Amino acid sequence: MEYEYAFEMAASNIRFGLGATQEVGMDLSELGAKQVLVVTDPGLRKTPVVDRVVTSLKEQNIAHSVFDQVRVEPTDGSMMEAIDFAKTEPFDSFVAVGGGSTIDTAKMANLYSTYPPDDFLDYVNPPIGKGLPVPGALKPLFALPTTAGTGSETTGVAIFDLEKMRAKTGVAHRRLKPTLGIIDPENTATLPPMVAAATGLDVLTHAVESYTALPFTKRPRPEHPILRPAYQGSNPISDIWALEAMRMVAKYLIREFENPGDEEARSMMALAASFAGVGFGNAGVTLPHGMSYPVSGMVREYQAEGYPQDHPMVPHGIAVVLNAPAAFRFTGPGCPERHLIAAEALGADITGAKPEDAGNIMADTIIGFMKQLRIPNGLNAVGYTVDDIPQLVEGALPQHRVIKIAPRTVGAEDLNEIFADAMRYW
Amino acid sequence: MEYEYAFEMAASNIRFGLGATQEVGMDLSELGAKQVLVVTDPGLRKTPVVDRVVTSLKEQNIAHSVFDQVRVEPTDGSMMEAIDFAKTEPFDSFVAVGGGSTIDTAKMANLYSTYPPDDFLDYVNPPIGKGLPVPGALKPLFALPTTAGTGSETTGVAIFDLEKMRAKTGVAHRRLKPTLGIIDPENTATLPPMVAAATGLDVLTHAVESYTALPFTKRPRPEHPILRPAYQGSNPISDIWALEAMRMVAKYLIREFENPGDEEARSMMALAASFAGVGFGNAGVTLPHGMSYPVSGMVREYQAEGYPQDHPMVPHGIAVVLNAPAAFRFTGPGCPERHLIAAEALGADITGAKPEDAGNIMADTIIGFMKQLRIPNGLNAVGYTVDDIPQLVEGALPQHRVIKIAPRTVGAEDLNEIFADAMRYW
Repeated sequence: MEYEYAFEMAASNIRFGLGATQEVGMDLSELGAKQVLVVTDPGLRKTPVVDRVVTSLKEQNIAHSVFDQVRVEPTDGSMMEAIDFAKTEPFDSFVAVGGGSTIDTAKMANLYSTYPPDDFLDYVNPPIGKGLPVPGALKPLFALPTTAGTGSETTGVAIFDLEKMRAKTGVAHRRLKPTLGIIDPENTATLPPMVAAATGLDVLTHAVESYTALPFTKRPRPEHPILRPAYQGSNPISDIWALEAMRMVAKYLIREFENPGDEEARSMMALAASFAGVGFGNAGVTLPHGMSYPVSGMVREYQAEGYPQDHPMVPHGIAVVLNAPAAFRFTGPGCPERHLIAAEALGADITGAKPEDAGNIMADTIIGFMKQLRIPNGLNAVGYTVDDIPQLVEGALPQHRVIKIAPRTVGAEDLNEIFADAMRYW
Repeated sequence: MEYEYAFEMAASNIRFGLGATQEVGMDLSELGAKQVLVVTDPGLRKTPVVDRVVTSLKEQNIAHSVFDQVRVEPTDGSMMEAIDFAKTEPFDSFVAVGGGSTIDTAKMANLYSTYPPDDFLDYVNPPIGKGLPVPGALKPLFALPTTAGTGSETTGVAIFDLEKMRAKTGVAHRRLKPTLGIIDPENTATLPPMVAAATGLDVLTHAVESYTALPFTKRPRPEHPILRPAYQGSNPISDIWALEAMRMVAKYLIREFENPGDEEARSMMALAASFAGVGFGNAGVTLPHGMSYPVSGMVREYQAEGYPQDHPMVPHGIAVVLNAPAAFRFTGPGCPERHLIAAEALGADITGAKPEDAGNIMADTIIGFMKQLRIPNGLNAVGYTVDDIPQLVEGALPQHRVIKIAPRTVGAEDLNEIFADAMRYW
């Protein structure tokens, strides 16, 4: 095997401004759009955010339909509903209005209606799917995030629960990337505090995971540049985005949670989410995300404050951060200096810290955020016990795309121990 | 007038790696390229850099022609030669191998051969030209910089001398942006030290000018998002790139100049050039660049070490930095804190600095670099005297695109004083 020698920063177009939502109709008109599919979820459909988008389309006389049946934490089944809807009319462009679930659903509807695969799993990440590349350019997709979390508006990744496996998987290809992410802090004005907390912690983990990911030079080199994965490992460009996102989270996340009227904090968290998105979109995420997929997929009864109550769900940001302290305790020895620099960017005092303390310092820093943001105390608190560990491990192990770029090699036995450590933190 | 309320970060795709030049043929093949125009200058034609590109095309059996008549510091006349050549065969894609002059020439050849204008000035920046927008997508253009300077591989800007006016102007539109910038530090291995110095100082000024530019919220708001200029003013995203570029210049530029064999320094300066390019490509440059255009355009006898000796020329990086100390003395009061933060990022000690000293501190910091890099001592040293000032002012005043985003309003009288201050520094 030859090691990688190059990395690539793939583009993300971002527009940021309070009120910028009103421009989307003009953008679509400029691209010649004639028939637009607006994708959103039932809760948002009733809010002024979707109205603002629809008004902007009407002002430009652009025909449009609204699909408002996105499932928060989507499944292959809920994705199929959106895909089928996207095939009912000859839509030439898409607008996603919502959190990561909605933006990801719109990406899938765009791909699967434009280039229908023989089998649903054809485009899905290996080893679960075949990982076939997206065969050509997709239709324009404008993404308007209503949470400050996933950064999905900047990435070429779409994630969902594969129901028959009870595990999360997804599709990842740079052609899935939205044409433009419009980040309008007005659209996060009504975010419930617990959603702000969960999505904000997703930003935090995106940033720390991508900064502590295996360096790109330690990944196998592909035979063709097009085969270079989106998740390339840490590199000098993703590092800049990740560190800046951490500094912003340290400064604004608790403020946003404690005072939803704090417009500066909300704006800066919206921007931090995109920064972290550009970072992890080019470098990748690692163990906390890989472990989160079975945690979300195997949920039994848990329902989180501020989220839809129609089905049990561990919201993505919570599922990730519950693993994070235990995972970073494990990865700390893989690159102690990076764990310390990240902890410092998040506000920890690392004066006199020794390399062997790096994982614990990062874990304690994150536990500090969890307590302040009233996050459940470990996997126990969302309904898991040690008896679930074998199945959790089984769900995490196939997540090669993220597990393989952790800064320490991780096997089934390691995952056993990390999940055990994640059961309860204080 | 309403003030701007949003900003946009337009995408730049960058690949970075020692040896990454060899991949360009595979990239073009993946895009279906059948007939490629390689654009370069006569000096580079004889170096292994162009050979590596040609070999990579041959390996993929891609037909190609080489236009090797790029003029370093191009003119409308030299641009026309490239444009005419680009029309001789049905080229479907472009590869630029060279410094900013070459990448800019390839952008112009792409635009003017794909969408020929009625008049050469149709696309040129107002008030000199009509500033018509690029009407549609251009052909793929891969840019391989061989200097660590312009950042042209990341921007939608092409600059040239308009011979009849003896002043620099250009075309600026996001559709001019290269498909991919391939930054291969191997391609800067034979850079003469004085070229490394001049282009490195271009990186420095890009970063400082974009960081101290008028904030985007102080610019008039356009009626349509497509009319938002590429040079939007400083914003939270361009700031990150600019500051990081300054820190890298502080650490690596003198090292690269003093020891061309220092691969780390050369690699980091190549990356810094792209970082600054992403920053100024979205925020803009201001006075030092605006003033540099007549300084380059009106050259009489000056020839710089390390550059082609076939025509008198003040290399772009030198023309810019000669104005920079005087320009920042003038703009300092416009945003003293930003001048101080930038000076600190460049290595200055700002302990106890007062806001009223900000412009001088920045000027002294840059003069320090100029001395270490053996740059001429002011405009006098490249052949200008106070008698030239009226004509220099006349050449700088129409550069609205950059003059108008300086952090202080600047008129003819101010420019008079700034040019006078730039005549001699030590």
